[in-house]
Amino acid sequence: MRAVDIIRRKRDGGELTAGEIAFLIDGYCRGDIPDYQMSAFAMAVLFRGMTAEETAELTLAMARSGSQLDLSGIPGIKVDKHSTGGVGDKTTLIVAPLAAAAGVPVAKMSGRGLGHTGGTIDKLESIPGFRTELAPEAFFRQVREIGLAVAGQSGDLAPADKKLYALRDVTATVESIPLIASSVMSKKIASGADAIVLDVKTGGGAFMKTLEDAERLAEAMVAIGRLVGRKTAAVISDMDQPLGRAIGNALEVKEAIAALRGDGPEDLTSLCLTLAAHMTVLGGKAAGIDEALLLLERKLKSGEALDKFRAFVAAQGGDPAVVDDPDRLPSAPHRICVKAERAGYVRRIDAEKLGLAAMMLGAGRAVKDAPIDHAVGVVLAQKLGSWVGAGEPLAELHAAREGDAEAEAMRLAAEAFEIGGEPPAVRPLILSVVTEDGIRRMD
Amino acid sequence: MRAVDIIRRKRDGGELTAGEIAFLIDGYCRGDIPDYQMSAFAMAVLFRGMTAEETAELTLAMARSGSQLDLSGIPGIKVDKHSTGGVGDKTTLIVAPLAAAAGVPVAKMSGRGLGHTGGTIDKLESIPGFRTELAPEAFFRQVREIGLAVAGQSGDLAPADKKLYALRDVTATVESIPLIASSVMSKKIASGADAIVLDVKTGGGAFMKTLEDAERLAEAMVAIGRLVGRKTAAVISDMDQPLGRAIGNALEVKEAIAALRGDGPEDLTSLCLTLAAHMTVLGGKAAGIDEALLLLERKLKSGEALDKFRAFVAAQGGDPAVVDDPDRLPSAPHRICVKAERAGYVRRIDAEKLGLAAMMLGAGRAVKDAPIDHAVGVVLAQKLGSWVGAGEPLAELHAAREGDAEAEAMRLAAEAFEIGGEPPAVRPLILSVVTEDGIRRMD
Repeated sequence: MRAVDIIRRKRDGGELTAGEIAFLIDGYCRGDIPDYQMSAFAMAVLFRGMTAEETAELTLAMARSGSQLDLSGIPGIKVDKHSTGGVGDKTTLIVAPLAAAAGVPVAKMSGRGLGHTGGTIDKLESIPGFRTELAPEAFFRQVREIGLAVAGQSGDLAPADKKLYALRDVTATVESIPLIASSVMSKKIASGADAIVLDVKTGGGAFMKTLEDAERLAEAMVAIGRLVGRKTAAVISDMDQPLGRAIGNALEVKEAIAALRGDGPEDLTSLCLTLAAHMTVLGGKAAGIDEALLLLERKLKSGEALDKFRAFVAAQGGDPAVVDDPDRLPSAPHRICVKAERAGYVRRIDAEKLGLAAMMLGAGRAVKDAPIDHAVGVVLAQKLGSWVGAGEPLAELHAAREGDAEAEAMRLAAEAFEIGGEPPAVRPLILSVVTEDGIRRMD
Repeated sequence: MRAVDIIRRKRDGGELTAGEIAFLIDGYCRGDIPDYQMSAFAMAVLFRGMTAEETAELTLAMARSGSQLDLSGIPGIKVDKHSTGGVGDKTTLIVAPLAAAAGVPVAKMSGRGLGHTGGTIDKLESIPGFRTELAPEAFFRQVREIGLAVAGQSGDLAPADKKLYALRDVTATVESIPLIASSVMSKKIASGADAIVLDVKTGGGAFMKTLEDAERLAEAMVAIGRLVGRKTAAVISDMDQPLGRAIGNALEVKEAIAALRGDGPEDLTSLCLTLAAHMTVLGGKAAGIDEALLLLERKLKSGEALDKFRAFVAAQGGDPAVVDDPDRLPSAPHRICVKAERAGYVRRIDAEKLGLAAMMLGAGRAVKDAPIDHAVGVVLAQKLGSWVGAGEPLAELHAAREGDAEAEAMRLAAEAFEIGGEPPAVRPLILSVVTEDGIRRMD
């Protein structure tokens, strides 16, 4: 078998065998197949696509390229959740305790943030004392005991994906549905979950700009799940604006606690309930989505979801008192108000610009391993469609100081809002659900 | 400017600027742009193609990546000839003295053979004493004095093309018309000719399997010539069988001498006259092809073409007596006859298999820089469409010994002939001519 022949077959529209895909990925990992052959292959895949079977084989080959977590020692159907990323996305902080409160064991590996989007691990570490490096023993014991653990991703999960993704990033081969789908799913499969719920974002601030593309990606991931025996469902939601109002680590934890208390922004709570409901159904704790939603709303109202979060914080060494007194979380000394220059409707909120503003304030990293300031960030005073008077606040920056970076963040945050005379068409938050039964559009 | 952005633009069907193409090729040559970006780019070009302008810019960027010959010191319009390669292709040996005899200065750089196709330099070196390494001074002086010189290609001609071609070979990105066209033309342009005549082969034994593909390649090369100011014409000829009857270095020189004496195989003589006629027209020594053909036929009959060849051999240190007594060329001690197993028409002759048979005998190299035996080779006793009786000769092998390699060569040569009861449809040798005025099919 030769790599050049496999590239040629894909280039000419052929379907590759499991053996050919394994040959490529295993050889690439070992260093036998060079970057220049893999990048040509990735470009051929970008043009020719892959069948569901090929995509599943690619996913499995990448999943088995490193260590694979065995969660079989934990009773029950372990359900993982993955988000395709977004500004102000604190869903894991809410969805994980909700699902755990409903009896679904959640054993989750999470990452750190890079660029304008934050990472769950960074957010959790804003809680004083919280530890995200858990030994496997402690991780498993915690899931068995309280039904929930979140640990930092070990470097050896699906290293083939990591290597291929870095290559795709510099060869203009990122934008391929089968390559994106296999990248996401390989890590989830190596993480050992029995079932997976995907939070796929679409819109201006998301990687998938159109609903159709988001649906194609969701379908590809659900098909992989079906073919490799991991039940998978995807919820496609709008990312034309940040989720909730808070952007920045401690600020997002505060907002998540409010949501778990039943007092969060409507969009955030609604999406989290839907995601947790799908986890509950896949985890076998409800017969259907409606039953799951009723169950989860009860867990929210009764305080059981908040209790689960408190137990989770305590189990990983964090200060559980923050749950009842969020002011114990780090807070920034300066507040800078971004005001509307004119009256009108908020017609557009550029999530990416707000993410960059938060990064400028110190909430995120421009480069890997850079230190971050957990306290700083941006809090939106307005959401899409709101009426705002001239001089009224659009957003508040939480800053460590008032220097050049803060001035630049203020400029970015002001630019992120577009004010106009006509109210914008605001589409529903949840646009579509993709399961093994197909696509269901929400109208 | 970033390579990844240029790859993305080509991937998405955009047209690149001269600056972007120069950035890629210059960076690739310097080592600033890695192989993995160039292979992804090549694959994107394979799918998206290139405009004539982009192809011309790519050609120029590769041509100026190394040393460029300046032939301006030689008076007249210098015309080069290039063949896309083939088994038994000795056209340069005939065309160059023909054109020179008609007054067109020919200053030609040629290569060595690799695999189943031979190289002009190897063929010339079968003449005792012949030198192909000429200092630039001597090369120019010889063209000025006798109108003809052929030297071995210096390693530094279009190094970007050499590097890119090696990469394309292992990444399944060879089969792209703009990449093939720019590869050929970059070397011709760096070689300094004012005009170029291309001998493009099509058919089973050629790289371009169909006439349509050959025409597309020819059009692309003629368009490059037009855009960079080098008049270019292409003759597309059939390669369903080897050209002439001899395959092997000294054997081909012998056949070329016969052709220059007016006594060569009809197909070989006919193609050489057509190629030389186009060189004569581009070189300004005839107003049209018909006039050029009359002139060249006179040069052949009068012995002036043969005299030019004799002077050329002498000027480069070769024994001019071989021209009048070709038996002075090296000859192989063994003759092995390949006979027809049944009577019938020769329906197919596999040129590649015969080329491989000649290589097995020692006429060619499997790897670069391997020594070759100038004396050995294959001489066809039959051409396509001939009737052959059972036991009658199909070909004769000229061998250095009678060992395992010779037995294998005999098997290959026998396999190369297909005999059947019906005569095959034999198409004309010259199928199409492409000039700046367009395509002219020969029916």
